[in-house]
Order: sequence, then C-alpha cells, then structure tokens
Amino acid sequence: MNTAEPTRAAASETSGSSGPSSAGAAGGVRLSARALRTPQPPIAWLMQQAFEVPGMISLAAGFVDQKSLPATPVRDLIEELYTDSDQVLRALQYGLTGGLRGLREAIAARLEKRGMPGPVSPDHVAVTSGSQQLLYLITEALVDPGDIVLVEDPTYFVYMGVLGSAGARILGVATDDEGIIPEALEKRLREVSDAGQMHRLKMLYVMTYFQNPKGTNHSQRRREQIYEIIERWSTPENFIYILEDAAYYELRFEGEDVPFLKSLDTRNERVMTALTFSKGFAPGLRLGYGYMPPALVEPVLNLKGNHDFGSGNLSQYIAHAALASGRFDQHVEILRARYKDKRDAMLRVIREEFPAEAQYAEPAGGLYVWVTLPEGVSTSPGSRFFQAAMAERVLYVPGHYCYAQEPGRPKPENQMRLCYAYIDEAPLEEGVRRMGAAIKAAL
Amino acid sequence: MNTAEPTRAAASETSGSSGPSSAGAAGGVRLSARALRTPQPPIAWLMQQAFEVPGMISLAAGFVDQKSLPATPVRDLIEELYTDSDQVLRALQYGLTGGLRGLREAIAARLEKRGMPGPVSPDHVAVTSGSQQLLYLITEALVDPGDIVLVEDPTYFVYMGVLGSAGARILGVATDDEGIIPEALEKRLREVSDAGQMHRLKMLYVMTYFQNPKGTNHSQRRREQIYEIIERWSTPENFIYILEDAAYYELRFEGEDVPFLKSLDTRNERVMTALTFSKGFAPGLRLGYGYMPPALVEPVLNLKGNHDFGSGNLSQYIAHAALASGRFDQHVEILRARYKDKRDAMLRVIREEFPAEAQYAEPAGGLYVWVTLPEGVSTSPGSRFFQAAMAERVLYVPGHYCYAQEPGRPKPENQMRLCYAYIDEAPLEEGVRRMGAAIKAAL
Repeated sequence: MNTAEPTRAAASETSGSSGPSSAGAAGGVRLSARALRTPQPPIAWLMQQAFEVPGMISLAAGFVDQKSLPATPVRDLIEELYTDSDQVLRALQYGLTGGLRGLREAIAARLEKRGMPGPVSPDHVAVTSGSQQLLYLITEALVDPGDIVLVEDPTYFVYMGVLGSAGARILGVATDDEGIIPEALEKRLREVSDAGQMHRLKMLYVMTYFQNPKGTNHSQRRREQIYEIIERWSTPENFIYILEDAAYYELRFEGEDVPFLKSLDTRNERVMTALTFSKGFAPGLRLGYGYMPPALVEPVLNLKGNHDFGSGNLSQYIAHAALASGRFDQHVEILRARYKDKRDAMLRVIREEFPAEAQYAEPAGGLYVWVTLPEGVSTSPGSRFFQAAMAERVLYVPGHYCYAQEPGRPKPENQMRLCYAYIDEAPLEEGVRRMGAAIKAAL
Repeated sequence: MNTAEPTRAAASETSGSSGPSSAGAAGGVRLSARALRTPQPPIAWLMQQAFEVPGMISLAAGFVDQKSLPATPVRDLIEELYTDSDQVLRALQYGLTGGLRGLREAIAARLEKRGMPGPVSPDHVAVTSGSQQLLYLITEALVDPGDIVLVEDPTYFVYMGVLGSAGARILGVATDDEGIIPEALEKRLREVSDAGQMHRLKMLYVMTYFQNPKGTNHSQRRREQIYEIIERWSTPENFIYILEDAAYYELRFEGEDVPFLKSLDTRNERVMTALTFSKGFAPGLRLGYGYMPPALVEPVLNLKGNHDFGSGNLSQYIAHAALASGRFDQHVEILRARYKDKRDAMLRVIREEFPAEAQYAEPAGGLYVWVTLPEGVSTSPGSRFFQAAMAERVLYVPGHYCYAQEPGRPKPENQMRLCYAYIDEAPLEEGVRRMGAAIKAAL
C-alpha cells in the first residue's frame, strides 16, 4: 500500500458515490456550519492516484517508515504488561480523560530532562489521540469563527484544514532557513493591530523542529525573537498564545538539540507544546501529548471528555512502559539512523538527477525535502510539471497547499514537498529519479 | 479505585487549582464559545467523593466489571497477530480515518447477521474512539448552536453535555417502561412546529437497548411507532435524523432480541446506529463504530480526519481478530452471565432492604437500576436523602442530572441511578444495604 498523509488517504477512501452533495439532494441533509467548513482534504483526489495508477511511486505519502516500526519492543512490552494481571485489567478498563497518571508523570519527567523549565506538573500534561487531537482540542478551546491564527508560510496543511473547519482567519508569516522571519511577524501583527483586530488574534501556530513541509529547524535565536515579539504584542485583555508543534522533535539526524520554544515560557502561561508517539515510536498506538498552561488544561479536558473520555488505555500502558523501560529512547536512535539514511538517499539522487535550477533544502531532521523550482514553473495540479510527474508516475505534495489562502496575496506555485519517510530505498531512489526527469521535462 | 462514569472521573481529576477562572484572571484566556459551553461535567465534584471519603462505596461508577475484562482473549489475539510480521507492522502504522477495512467488513457482516437489512456496506460503517466519539462527530456534523435535538426523559447525561457544548436546545420526551411514549413525541413535535422551529430540529437521540439511566429496552412496537412519527414529521427540507445509541445492545440477560430501530430504515437514510467494543469486550481498546446513511459518512469522516486521522490501529487489529475468531461473541456470553449475576445481587438486596415506598425497575439487560422515591423526596445534592447517603457512605447518580433542562419544565427530583457494573458483589451488596438505610432515614 503506497499511500498518503493519514488524513488524506482516509478521506480519499470515501470519495466515491457517498458525497454529501448527491445524498444531500436525496435526503435533505442539513449540515452544521462547521461541517460545511470541513471539506475533503484538498489533495485527497491526488492521493487516490497512488492507489489507482499502477506503478505510481508516492513521495507525497505522510506515513512513517514501515520496516523500522517497533514490532519487537511492543511485543516485549505487552509480555511484561502481562506479568502483572491487575495491571492488564486496568489497561483494558476505562481510563482518565487526561491520560494514565503514570504516563503523564513519565512525560513530565522526560520534558524536564530535555530542558523544560521545571517543575513540569503531570497535571499540565494531557495525553491525546496523536498530537493531531491535541491540535484539534486546543483550536476548539480557543478559536471562534472569525478569530485569527498566525501560521508559518508554508505550514502543515492538515492543521490549516483544522483551522478552516473552526472558521479561523489564517494569516501566513514569511519564513526563511532559520524559521519565522521576525520582521515578517512584526509586520503581520501591526497589520492586525491597525485593522483593530487584536481582540480576534488568538495564537501563533509554529512547528519548531524540522518543519512540515520545509524541514526547517527554528534556531535558538529565532525562538527567542518570536517569543519576545508575541509577548510584547500580547496584552492581558488580548492574550496571544503560541502553539508549538514539536511533532518531529525526536527526529534529529545531526546538530545540537535546541530547547523547546516553550522553555522560554518559564511561568507556563503562553505556550502549548504538542508532541507525539507517532514519529518517534509507532503511529498505531495513536498517542500524542501536550504540555500546556494551567488555564487551558481544564477547557481542553472538558472538551476531550465529550470527545472520547480519554485515549486508548491499553496503548497508554504500552507507551508508559516504553518510556519507563528506555525502549522508547532506544527506538528513537534506530529511527534517527534509518531516516538519516533515507534522507541521504533522497539527497544523493537529487544531486545526481535534478537540474541546477531546482533548489532544495538539506534538512537536519524530520521527514521532508522542500524543493523550489524556478519562478514561473508551477507545480500545481494541471501544470505542465504536474503532468510530467504523472507521466513519470511519481507523486508529490504541491507546495501551494501549504500556504494560507489570503485575498490579494498570491501563493508561491513553484514548490513541492518530497517525503522520504514511508517507502523503501529502492522505490525512493527511483521516485526521485523520475522526479528529476519530470523537472527536466518541464523546464 | 472505586470510581466514576469515565468522563466524570477524568474531569474530577482536573478540579484542583487549575480551573479556568483563576488562571483566566491571571492570563486573560479568551475561550471559544464552545469551550465556554463545555463546563466540567455536573457531577465531577460528586465523583471526587468516591476518592476522598474513606470507605465510600460508589453505585454511581460507570466503569465496567473489572474481573471479567478479556485479559486472556486479548493476549491470545495479540499472539496470533504476531504470527504474521507484516500484519504487525501494519497494525503499528497509521490507518485509515474511517477504520481498518477488514474490521469494517466484519462489522458490516455482523450487523447483517443481527438482522440489519442488507447489504450493509462497509463504506457506511465508521470506526471511532468509543461510540462516544461517534456521538460527538455526528453532533458536530449536524448541530449548530440553537438547533434542536429531542432526547428521552431521562437520558444519558454525558450526551446532554455534548449537546450543550454544541449549543443545542435539548427537548426531553417522556418515556415509560416501553420507551419513548408516542403521544409525548407527537406533542413535542407539534410544539416545535407551532413555534415555527422545524427548520432547527435536527434529530432524535434515543437509546434503544437497556437505556442509561432507566434500563428500559424499547419494545418493537415502540420502535415502529417512533420511526413512523419521525418519518411523518420529516420533510425533504427539514429532514429529521434518528441517532440510535445501541451501546448496551450486547448486554441482554433475558428475553428475545429486538431488531435495531435502524432495521426500519431500509433505505439507510435516516438512522445512525452507534455501537461499542467497550461494553461487550474491553473499554481499554477505546473502539466503537457506527452504521450510518451515506450522506453523513463523508462529513463525519472529514471531521474525524481533523480530529485524529483515525482511531488506534493496533486496537483495531485486535478488535477485528476478536470478531473474526468468535472470541468477541464468546466474551459477550461471559459478560451476560456476569452482569446478570450482579443485577440479581443488586435486586435481591433491594428487595430485602428498600422500604416499599421505593419503586424500581428490573432491567432485562444493561448496567443500571433506576429507583424512584416517593414524590417530594429529593435525591439531589444537599437534600436530606443525599446527606443520609453520604453519612452511610454510598454514592449514586441523582436522577435530575439525566433530564433536559427546560425553562418552565421542572425536573423530577426523586429518582436515582444505581449501577452494578464496576464493583464486586460484596461491596455491591453492602452498598445497596447502605442505600436502603439511607432511604429509610430520609422517609
């Protein structure tokens, strides 16, 4: 199964005859405003190609590397769980909405060890169904239709879907190789302020580690600048939060660890940091977590109680044991080596096969290479390049999906995201070769 | 841990110093309208008593029986999963938003076997994080603030929290021992129509099997009457859905199976039926599922994609194997016997210890006994009876939490829900004895 970003693969599956338009006509379905703001992910149709076209290689897929999934560690952890029969029963029972106490304690201890200013209270850690659910809940807790959220230009397009569903106005902030450009952030804040809209500005969403799609790791200097700027523009009445998405935190291949942006939030009042067990361990456990200001814990958990009473308890016992036994950290080391190899493979073929006009970043971690073609060469669906890639049977994520849609602010059309996470080296290299051929054909 | 309805136990955990009020004053948190409509569950404080008062016995707890959780079947299923290493890797990977294909197929086949008019397409089955998440998603897809949802009087109070969070106007429909009273349903529909509000009426929520809190099983006659009435009042413009919550479907102790209300919806256009692996197998897998009209599948899955990309994949592989191997059905038989014994134990002590003035229903399935005290004897917090129960150290769910709050429509105050699911027979019987003493003291 050569498939797609999780949400897209799923959505594409339902893109058959069961659409709301057709059935709506028959049954008179009156969807909520939120549902009407929640279309199929824009690239669902694209992902369908990965299933339907024989021999298609997807460099668009957002799944993780299959071979290195922790089959043996998970089996061992379950066997150990079964040495304590009371513990097994607790794992099969309902749990607490905020998550297993022991897991939250282990997470809090780990965050402190990773430089988070302590004490980190387990009460301010929430376990969720992937970090995705945490992003959803925080957005649900803070954002009303018409509220403003600042995001990186480009940013994680799935989260833009969440913001769109909430009715948010999404304003992009320009980035460079170090992350968000401070002057661009100032400029946007001034625009919001000049428009008398500061009361609608709720937060800044920023991926601080090996950003999706660019692969950029925010420098320490930039983290400090961003934090200072947001703090300065924030007032007690119009308090601005920062949602730090650290999904790729574990996947560093080289260079020094940079502290969480949240480390600057020493009073734990401004930054929510989202992390996940999906990228560093196994998505199949469907667990993520967040560390957040006390003022948000109860609203987020009250919502989560309505969603699901808490995430899978059996998964949480496995995750807890993975952290406590050291197997999580051991597995992260394996994944770092594995993804580094795959990144190197992709970069090697890019160097060999891409014409000089194609620029690309060399990420120090994460799962993505961001490619920029010359101005005027569009990567968007229907473009000459897109058709060439289809003819070569290789898929990518068109870059313009990763930019906020704003009237009068044209999106760059000449970029694309390539992912080396899911497929094995041989098809990976072949896919990049095809991509090189497509670029040459389009230039 | 003698604890509570899942969502309440969890919420009570966060009722410490981290409330939004205190922190909000410090940090200026501007919550969304939805978050402001989503308070702590009303009885969180009550559940806290179960933890804080030594020797407290909770007949309020909504957890399932601990001893009979399927520890051995789950271990066997995981061992079998591990005989196929590719399958293990798939279980640890991301899945599809709508759920594992094989699981959806097994569910569809099972529903057909249980009398659902076929063919049941797996495309119209969605796997969710407990049936709770399905209830949430359906509500999110259909209900805008100010929309109307009809519920049973009394109904599942957690779902009223979901409706309140969505901003719904909740209208209660009177019930008797057979379920919703047709004349009461007609009357409410006429009221809505007379008020010119049919365009806001979105659905009827009904628990068809061993209802929470009353334990009532809707008779076949009533199912037909309810369906006919809703169909008659529904128009293509103002289409009225029925959300059939069948969470306790598996837990029948005696009597004949009654077909799903959805069986009447032969064109699969009006009824969404929600079922769960929590009550018949293990809540720790955190899985439920729904069978729904095509028009709702895509809106619900687009929302779910934003929530979490799909529920835990490892859990879904276990659930699929449980269904396919027959272990699910075997376990349901064990649970039926177990809960029947516990129901019998509760009823036996009730007969021995409760004064004649206390009326109660004898449920043929499910987890609850609904007790009605004489008119004028309040069970609400602060009442004489409540204080007597506290003095006896026994907890229950005050009945008025289970009624929709409507201006000018006083709720019954003289009822309570007793749950025999979680605690073992000895404390269960002791708890009921204490309850008898409290009733005698209050009369």
